[in-house]
Amino acid sequence: MFVVGSGARHLEDELRKLGARLMEREIKRFPDGEKYVRVLGSAEGVTVVQSTFRPQDEHLVELILIADALRERGVERLRAVVPYMAYSRQDRVTKEGEPVSVRAIMRTLAVYYDELYVFDLHNPETLKFFPGKAVNLSPARAIAEYFGEKFGDGLVLAPDKGARGRAKAVAEKLNLEFSHFEKERISPTEVRMTPVDVDVAGKNVLIVDDIISTGGTMVRAANLLREMGAEKVFVAATHGVFAEGAIERVSKAVDELAVTNTIPTPVSRISVVPDILGL
Amino acid sequence: MFVVGSGARHLEDELRKLGARLMEREIKRFPDGEKYVRVLGSAEGVTVVQSTFRPQDEHLVELILIADALRERGVERLRAVVPYMAYSRQDRVTKEGEPVSVRAIMRTLAVYYDELYVFDLHNPETLKFFPGKAVNLSPARAIAEYFGEKFGDGLVLAPDKGARGRAKAVAEKLNLEFSHFEKERISPTEVRMTPVDVDVAGKNVLIVDDIISTGGTMVRAANLLREMGAEKVFVAATHGVFAEGAIERVSKAVDELAVTNTIPTPVSRISVVPDILGL
Repeated sequence: MFVVGSGARHLEDELRKLGARLMEREIKRFPDGEKYVRVLGSAEGVTVVQSTFRPQDEHLVELILIADALRERGVERLRAVVPYMAYSRQDRVTKEGEPVSVRAIMRTLAVYYDELYVFDLHNPETLKFFPGKAVNLSPARAIAEYFGEKFGDGLVLAPDKGARGRAKAVAEKLNLEFSHFEKERISPTEVRMTPVDVDVAGKNVLIVDDIISTGGTMVRAANLLREMGAEKVFVAATHGVFAEGAIERVSKAVDELAVTNTIPTPVSRISVVPDILGL
Repeated sequence: MFVVGSGARHLEDELRKLGARLMEREIKRFPDGEKYVRVLGSAEGVTVVQSTFRPQDEHLVELILIADALRERGVERLRAVVPYMAYSRQDRVTKEGEPVSVRAIMRTLAVYYDELYVFDLHNPETLKFFPGKAVNLSPARAIAEYFGEKFGDGLVLAPDKGARGRAKAVAEKLNLEFSHFEKERISPTEVRMTPVDVDVAGKNVLIVDDIISTGGTMVRAANLLREMGAEKVFVAATHGVFAEGAIERVSKAVDELAVTNTIPTPVSRISVVPDILGL
């Protein structure tokens, strides 16, 4: 049984179409700004789907209120599916005095939830902060399926070495080669990017990353690939945390930009709903 | 040692003036909307002051992030002073399927905080949901001190029987008599209010409540007191959760409206800061 929070309303139709049993629920706001939630069913175990994009804190608190309502109705096992996990990039103390924000959020969710499922967490090691069962789901199936046909022959590239695993997972599903860009700072404002050990000339290239924010890296990578004679350049990411103007900037530089629907955006054409239903 | 969250910025100057040691801290927002906090000191025990008025969920998450940052710095005992507790009116299930939201919030705060101090909680029984030490602070000192002089002789009234204790506490500090209004529904849209066992003619009256929202009750009570020959009518409340236009509506009907600074409003002239420092 699923409960869909307001941070997953954009997934509701597809969940229903693919056969998910959705619990009726009411979510609104009191005049003073507090959230009101109500769940109109019960089951032994319930999966609450709630993505925590902007407004992040509201989506997080709602996730907790829904859990309290479900426990109140006697639901025993609570599973949270959080396609996009807020604060996931605050995964370490870089300046003294900072919190590990993603730890704080995970501990908080653990008050009510027994299991936590997220997609493509920025730093999968941070799942250890969730004391229950915590799983990092891969976007590879969704991205490979979406780009497979239009893409044809070619290769998959990660924008940096750290993202190589993601490129590999997509490439393997499509039986393609993969590699990553090496980044080298050549001046305070300039970074040189080089695809490692692959020849891109005449090939279609899919660049895959976890998050696109300003899109600067993707635009640089795409321009470089063109210069090197690549045929078509596609960009995919799991989470479209787009800064103002980023979608336009990236779209102009590539043949297609598409992200998954962990966050609803105008280019969230890749669906992770089948993966959620497969849990 | 105190850390002041962004929901208590309006208390910072007074805390400092009254001698509180405030830890330097940085609170800002990332471009994507996530909160960034940083604490620039450490101590054995720290009191975090954060009121959770609108935007409630942001103030709540910030309270948790600050706690994580303090624990990361090795602070052992964490005390939260939450002058206004969000979701405190969601203290019971009135329709099947609702959460007890205040329980969810208190359990969440307990992940990090050892002690919780709030002012004039809507339903003090809900403090039991906080597993650590939890204290409900009275606004009586602050209200009595503020109205004591301008008020002179007269009496203190609670708008309903449930609020009688608050009126009593203020009245005792001022050596005045007190009572409450009895409410009787005489039609679906009309409620008759009667002050119980007191003669208000020729007297100054202070009406005291915990929360003023629309102000409807206060306006009705004030008008009635005028009809009954009351001299001056004052209205005080702990939390000014004012709906649009409420301050104007109530102000027009009374001689003075003042609330405490648990929530910053244009009429938050009664300070609870001395009570926070007395903890």
